[in-house]
Amino acid sequence: VVGAHVMGAELARMLTAIVAVSMAATPLVTTAYEKLVLSRLEARAEPENLPFDEGDPDVIVAGFGRFGQIATRLLLANNFKVVLLENSIEQIEILRRFGWRVHYGDASRIDLLRTAGADKAKLLLVAIDDRDKASEMVEAAHQAFPNITILARAFDRRHAYELLKTPGVSVERETFESALNYGRKALLKLGVSERRALRAAIVFREQDEKYFKELAPLAGEEDNYTMAARDSRETTERLLRAEMTRIAAEEDGEREARAQEGQHRLEADKERV
Amino acid sequence: VVGAHVMGAELARMLTAIVAVSMAATPLVTTAYEKLVLSRLEARAEPENLPFDEGDPDVIVAGFGRFGQIATRLLLANNFKVVLLENSIEQIEILRRFGWRVHYGDASRIDLLRTAGADKAKLLLVAIDDRDKASEMVEAAHQAFPNITILARAFDRRHAYELLKTPGVSVERETFESALNYGRKALLKLGVSERRALRAAIVFREQDEKYFKELAPLAGEEDNYTMAARDSRETTERLLRAEMTRIAAEEDGEREARAQEGQHRLEADKERV
Repeated sequence: VVGAHVMGAELARMLTAIVAVSMAATPLVTTAYEKLVLSRLEARAEPENLPFDEGDPDVIVAGFGRFGQIATRLLLANNFKVVLLENSIEQIEILRRFGWRVHYGDASRIDLLRTAGADKAKLLLVAIDDRDKASEMVEAAHQAFPNITILARAFDRRHAYELLKTPGVSVERETFESALNYGRKALLKLGVSERRALRAAIVFREQDEKYFKELAPLAGEEDNYTMAARDSRETTERLLRAEMTRIAAEEDGEREARAQEGQHRLEADKERV
Repeated sequence: VVGAHVMGAELARMLTAIVAVSMAATPLVTTAYEKLVLSRLEARAEPENLPFDEGDPDVIVAGFGRFGQIATRLLLANNFKVVLLENSIEQIEILRRFGWRVHYGDASRIDLLRTAGADKAKLLLVAIDDRDKASEMVEAAHQAFPNITILARAFDRRHAYELLKTPGVSVERETFESALNYGRKALLKLGVSERRALRAAIVFREQDEKYFKELAPLAGEEDNYTMAARDSRETTERLLRAEMTRIAAEEDGEREARAQEGQHRLEADKERV
């Protein structure tokens, strides 16, 4: 279509360049179009808005995923009044199918928290699955509702330290206890006794709690923190190793005692025969 | 630059359209360029390859994140020989700075597992943070190394059922125990006694284990599973509620007994005066 006899060579080159860029960009544009436009058209409708119950809630649960659900079930079984907030449309649909009365909305919005009863509630569980948003939310909620107690789900130790910058917040690292249980089960699979495996988990938890507090002031200082964390890890391992050796010796002693006991009985039986 | 006197109106319109698309696409192209090209140039070099230790390992840990690390520390303190595999370059750099001897590579590759000693190891911990890859890996590893015991990290209940399709695999749901502990702490914050809060968590865990097994055969059937899960949830809540009421009554009884005891002492003291 474009010939040198119709326009200058300069223009032809420019046009070629533009066409080349356009062609290269086409899949990107198409993808972007699909992502931005089509997905919006296809998106599910917003879930039906449920009215909030009258009366003050005891607890507001922000984020009703695999984490918030278990805590909520313990609260309900203890007759606490709980309001549930969830931001994912997909999740809400599933939850309502399972019979949960979940409110739809972004729990990091202070006005939604207020409507949900945060002025009156005793406890706010920040159990959303988004590190940064959780940190922001904890801070904003503390500012807006200084009397509410906040218990937040932390991604890991680093996130836990970040959350704890807001006064009066408590945290639970979302995989810590499960990882400990995983380790305990691994020990059992390798033939370690129930007692020793359980003791390993308990000692580890105690040590972790101790160092979690001790290392908190270093949380921002990369090098100092790394060094202190290495030290604490080595100390924990030494202590744990000593404890495991102690229990193993105890168990050996008991086994021997049982064996001797058996031997005595055997001899006694023999004499009796 | 483009004038109607140089080329036809048709061509001008086409050109305008192309330019418009190009302009619209420019940020996309730039972003794509940055993502595809620059990030590759800037990407860190692959971590140094560490030689594998001689001698057979007891355990291979695939995925050395927040989950695998804790289990590994329990194993090391019990003198098991552990080989660590991690796929994230960024993570490896941090880990080595913390003093860990971690091998770099994709642990879902059977040849890497073999090099790591999977033919001889007793236990494989699949602790990677990728649901689909974990499922594939568990299946492939069981095929290739039928004698190894596999303990896998599961994202949630649904993923756990998927992993358990492979024979001889055990699982740990990665947030279950922490969520339970989170719920226990929430109860404490609301003034529930330590004993009652702990008991709530224990009863919940027992019930969950029971229904986890009972519902396993329904895992694929959406409607039946949903119905059974709702039932099991209601039963658990009823049972938990009854147990909480029982403990609360016990505690009331004890409080009363203590109060009476106090009253007796007070009267005895008065008589003595």
